Amino acid sequence: MASASTMTVNPDLQKERDRGTFDVEKLTHFIDGGPKATARRRYLQNMAIKDLKSMNLKPWAFRTREEQYDTTIRKQVHVVKRSQELGLTTQEINIYEDTFQPHENNRIGPRNGMFPPTIEKQATQEQKEKFLPLIKNMTVIGCYAQTEMGHGTFIRGLESTATYDPKTKEFILNTPTITSMKFWPGDLGKTVNFCVFLAQLYTKGKCHGIHAFLLPLRDIDTHKSLPGIEVGDIGPKFGFGENDNGYLRVDNVRIPRDYMLMRYAKVLEDGTYIEPKNSKITYGTLVLSRTALINWSGTYLAQACTIAIRYSSVRRQTEVSPGGPEAQVIDYQTQQNKLFPLLAKAYAFTFAARAVLETFNRINAQIEAGNLDHMTELHALCAGLKGMLTDEAATGIEVCRLACGGHGYSHASGIPKMYTSVTVFCTVEGENTVMMLQMARFLIKSYKQMRSGKQLQGFVAYLGNRQPARSSMTTDVTLQCLQEAYEHRAARLIKETAGILEMHQKSGISPEEAWNRTATQLTWAASAHSHAYVVKTFVSKVTKDNLDTGVRAVMTSLCLLYCLHGIRENLGEFIQDGFFNSKQVTTLTTKMMSVLADIRPNAVSLVDAFEFSDSQLDSCLGRYDGNVYQALYEYAKASPFNQKDVTDSFHKYIKPMRDSKSGVSSSKL
Amino acid sequence: MASASTMTVNPDLQKERDRGTFDVEKLTHFIDGGPKATARRRYLQNMAIKDLKSMNLKPWAFRTREEQYDTTIRKQVHVVKRSQELGLTTQEINIYEDTFQPHENNRIGPRNGMFPPTIEKQATQEQKEKFLPLIKNMTVIGCYAQTEMGHGTFIRGLESTATYDPKTKEFILNTPTITSMKFWPGDLGKTVNFCVFLAQLYTKGKCHGIHAFLLPLRDIDTHKSLPGIEVGDIGPKFGFGENDNGYLRVDNVRIPRDYMLMRYAKVLEDGTYIEPKNSKITYGTLVLSRTALINWSGTYLAQACTIAIRYSSVRRQTEVSPGGPEAQVIDYQTQQNKLFPLLAKAYAFTFAARAVLETFNRINAQIEAGNLDHMTELHALCAGLKGMLTDEAATGIEVCRLACGGHGYSHASGIPKMYTSVTVFCTVEGENTVMMLQMARFLIKSYKQMRSGKQLQGFVAYLGNRQPARSSMTTDVTLQCLQEAYEHRAARLIKETAGILEMHQKSGISPEEAWNRTATQLTWAASAHSHAYVVKTFVSKVTKDNLDTGVRAVMTSLCLLYCLHGIRENLGEFIQDGFFNSKQVTTLTTKMMSVLADIRPNAVSLVDAFEFSDSQLDSCLGRYDGNVYQALYEYAKASPFNQKDVTDSFHKYIKPMRDSKSGVSSSKL
Repeated sequence: MASASTMTVNPDLQKERDRGTFDVEKLTHFIDGGPKATARRRYLQNMAIKDLKSMNLKPWAFRTREEQYDTTIRKQVHVVKRSQELGLTTQEINIYEDTFQPHENNRIGPRNGMFPPTIEKQATQEQKEKFLPLIKNMTVIGCYAQTEMGHGTFIRGLESTATYDPKTKEFILNTPTITSMKFWPGDLGKTVNFCVFLAQLYTKGKCHGIHAFLLPLRDIDTHKSLPGIEVGDIGPKFGFGENDNGYLRVDNVRIPRDYMLMRYAKVLEDGTYIEPKNSKITYGTLVLSRTALINWSGTYLAQACTIAIRYSSVRRQTEVSPGGPEAQVIDYQTQQNKLFPLLAKAYAFTFAARAVLETFNRINAQIEAGNLDHMTELHALCAGLKGMLTDEAATGIEVCRLACGGHGYSHASGIPKMYTSVTVFCTVEGENTVMMLQMARFLIKSYKQMRSGKQLQGFVAYLGNRQPARSSMTTDVTLQCLQEAYEHRAARLIKETAGILEMHQKSGISPEEAWNRTATQLTWAASAHSHAYVVKTFVSKVTKDNLDTGVRAVMTSLCLLYCLHGIRENLGEFIQDGFFNSKQVTTLTTKMMSVLADIRPNAVSLVDAFEFSDSQLDSCLGRYDGNVYQALYEYAKASPFNQKDVTDSFHKYIKPMRDSKSGVSSSKL
Repeated sequence: MASASTMTVNPDLQKERDRGTFDVEKLTHFIDGGPKATARRRYLQNMAIKDLKSMNLKPWAFRTREEQYDTTIRKQVHVVKRSQELGLTTQEINIYEDTFQPHENNRIGPRNGMFPPTIEKQATQEQKEKFLPLIKNMTVIGCYAQTEMGHGTFIRGLESTATYDPKTKEFILNTPTITSMKFWPGDLGKTVNFCVFLAQLYTKGKCHGIHAFLLPLRDIDTHKSLPGIEVGDIGPKFGFGENDNGYLRVDNVRIPRDYMLMRYAKVLEDGTYIEPKNSKITYGTLVLSRTALINWSGTYLAQACTIAIRYSSVRRQTEVSPGGPEAQVIDYQTQQNKLFPLLAKAYAFTFAARAVLETFNRINAQIEAGNLDHMTELHALCAGLKGMLTDEAATGIEVCRLACGGHGYSHASGIPKMYTSVTVFCTVEGENTVMMLQMARFLIKSYKQMRSGKQLQGFVAYLGNRQPARSSMTTDVTLQCLQEAYEHRAARLIKETAGILEMHQKSGISPEEAWNRTATQLTWAASAHSHAYVVKTFVSKVTKDNLDTGVRAVMTSLCLLYCLHGIRENLGEFIQDGFFNSKQVTTLTTKMMSVLADIRPNAVSLVDAFEFSDSQLDSCLGRYDGNVYQALYEYAKASPFNQKDVTDSFHKYIKPMRDSKSGVSSSKL
């Protein structure tokens, strides 16, 4: 890494690197997917570091919100140029951007996550030919405007309207109420000049539900907002300062008929509505977004672990024995028990994300070819994993931050920004509780199919297996025993919850109310199932053939820890039916403590293997060279608040108050 | 409340208020401690609202950091004036401040949490006579400078030095290394002109450990920093923007001999060191600070619950049955299962904080009178409760925020600021893991005393009771059964952990290493004990005589929920030894779901009873009148980012990029 060569590495950190028991380079290849992928990633990463350095920016936390926005627009224009001049693939430009624009949640123009894909998927050929080139050269800059102030989860409840007027062959768009104004769409406030506007379609006096329309918001040349359009920024948020999430009110704005996206549904010139052949086909973009959130969960968590583990290796606090040297914080078992399970989780999530993406690519290809058989399975998988991984990544990042003590609270640590970037993933693209309930719906359906004799396939296949009622685990704690425990727990909870649901259904209440009264337990079942899925992908990854021996050993320890810690965190669910007995629980706890000690010598190497650049981490505490205190001092000195020695506030408030009192003369001091 | 009368209340919220089953006023008295206390609180709160309104400030989130600082200094000067002109008690001014300066963590001059109390406790009579009047009239503005960049937890490891020079009868103060610079003390960067400087005392060539010195930092009249002093702000943080947490480097600065705080230890003119009679006496201030954090945990959590529960009552999302009206979000069981246990926790923490403060006052009076018998018990109690309550309050506030969906992420919700204010409590005044281990140390000591025949007293007395090995609970789930379960779990974990510790000790490793290898489990035991303490104080509060019948009924439901939810969250620990059998676990789960439904009609009344003012909540979502959408819209419109329709960034980056391309003419659109 670039940072390593420029400064002397803190000796504590160097010692950690020297004591690792495996070849870090080999693990890096394993993570990247092979030496060639590693080489390409490094090339792109180094280019991003160089480009970033040449922009000579002040630290993110020192920028005002206006400056954060300005910087991100400047960067995005640069990203688009870079991408086009080098002909980078989406995956490649994502790698470049992870370093060039870390934790900045603003992708505009051709990089916007929803606007271009929606045109790609839902526009007619003519619409594509007209708009895609304009998007590419940033004449049209758009966003996807679905969420309203009063509606997020329940899309069918959107209040915006698009009424067809056959006289002029136009749609008249409106946001008729306060709650119907668009609220939250990214880039909407200031950046875009177009949006995809989701609205209830009315034609010939009848409502046909939600459809997508292209709505011009600002003048292409002057960028001034157009008549009938009230658009602006929604104000400061927890994070995402660089993004102008916006609001939009539309007052009788007319758009031509061919600004409705008409690949599927159509409105003819006379106002006749033509139904789409398959109404579910538009799901694709949303599911793809969820795979991205799943992927980021692992990455961000791994970054927070990198910071906390490196810092814990150079931070020393409290003598181990009276008068002796102070211990590295990472040598405290409590610190290991905070950080190592999260490190294991970061690896588990990284591998799970890879598996989800493979499934997405496979099933999506079928869908594009017209085979929708596995669409609900894909949908459930992405919903459940999105819910579980974003939630746990956010929580885990906060644990990392708190494990850095006071300095974790400073923006100098870089972790607060990671948290505010990740926690929003719990809400966007489908609120997490709603996600878990969607997974649960699929599980209940599958369970019923199995009960009626159907052979289950895919990720619910295990529900049909014979499960032993008691674990046969001895003091030899194997991955196989643990995976079995996870599947047993999930299968038991799904079965039990299906029973509770049925009981409520039979009690005479409506199906919706029965579902609601079971909802909490349904989320437990969905979590248990998703957890088992992550365990399974991790186990299969580390037990694969042709893995380097050293890498396999350390990955096996991490996988064991992931499984053991997850059992400890949810112990009741594993033992309520006696699957593990009391003695086995003691075995599991003892094993967990010993695995912590196994991982200890490799902790720093395990985070190094991810090869996050210093630019990407943007952290005084997580630097590759470990020179954290000098970095903290320089951060402090450079704080914009230090430009003046004496603040105006002193003269405005404190001095006058003091002078109004018959104070003791200061000369006495 | 003032806000209620000015606007029409949202009908959904009004309906919630009308359906409550108890007299809210009576519960308010119960919380405040009687009708007189309620009246006084309302008087102070209304004064604060009026004073705040007259200052005509822009919303907190719209201020730059410099403006946040400026506003807080202005407010603090006002608070000091108000306090002095009305002769308010500390408790009264705290009430005033909670509304006047909500979630602003900056108390300066006489209101500083550590500087005046340290002078009060550790200065000699002459020093007090000289400095206290100067503090009162804000001639001397000070802070407590203990934490260094390299040392927070381990005070004995501080590197700052104070070397006595008998020739000039002065101390020479130094921060000799990068890591020894003071870092983090509140108000240090810009506000104070003095500090209490903690340093290793050297005299006659010998080090006598940490002592406190008065160190002038800035000129009293000009406020310019003095020679040898490098002082500044440490830069932007997660929260606390209004506080100039500072850094301080000291280079050979001389202070007179009588600037050492000499109530206990002394240095005579010739440099002779006189030891203090009792070295533990200075603990008091720290323990008092912890009681304050314990108290705020309950308050802040109650505030977040107020916001989330009111918003969940006016937010409607998704049809319950197809085509029907959309449901209030609070009617979803999953939402109830998020928010009601936190509401129960807010009450539990409020009562626990009251109990801790009573214990503090009682034992502190003994200590002041020279009886130190219960000092370690008090210390353990405050450590364990601080650790548990601050941690759970912070986590709970985030659950409330996420339960508000997307809008929770906006600063308009008020919750992000609550979180960044509370989460820091997990680290300051004793890092939480360290706190739990201090509690654990006391528990292990007590357990050993009991084993050697001593009758235990105070909050560990239950360890000596005979505990049944199995719960006798039937389908009738009583508070008594549940309290018994909590004590059983704590006693079992303490006993088991003591056994593990002993096993390690006997294995031939050092006592410190044995402790470290047991540390994770020690924290589990300390948590279980603290949890049992909170349960006990809650149960005793709601089973007390002469409680109003309606209030008792609803408090009993909340207390049941607190106990049941806590068991569910830690189920493994309650059933690992078979204390509850599988059937009883089912009973507990079923009961929990039914208690959620019991609480539902009273949810809004239960948060209303805390009577947080709209100023205090500072939330568009938590308003008393429930007019959340209009408020969100006004917040957005007023965002400083909306001052210009077209940003400069468009002209700087987007237009030039576009012009450089052979783009399609915009006239085609």
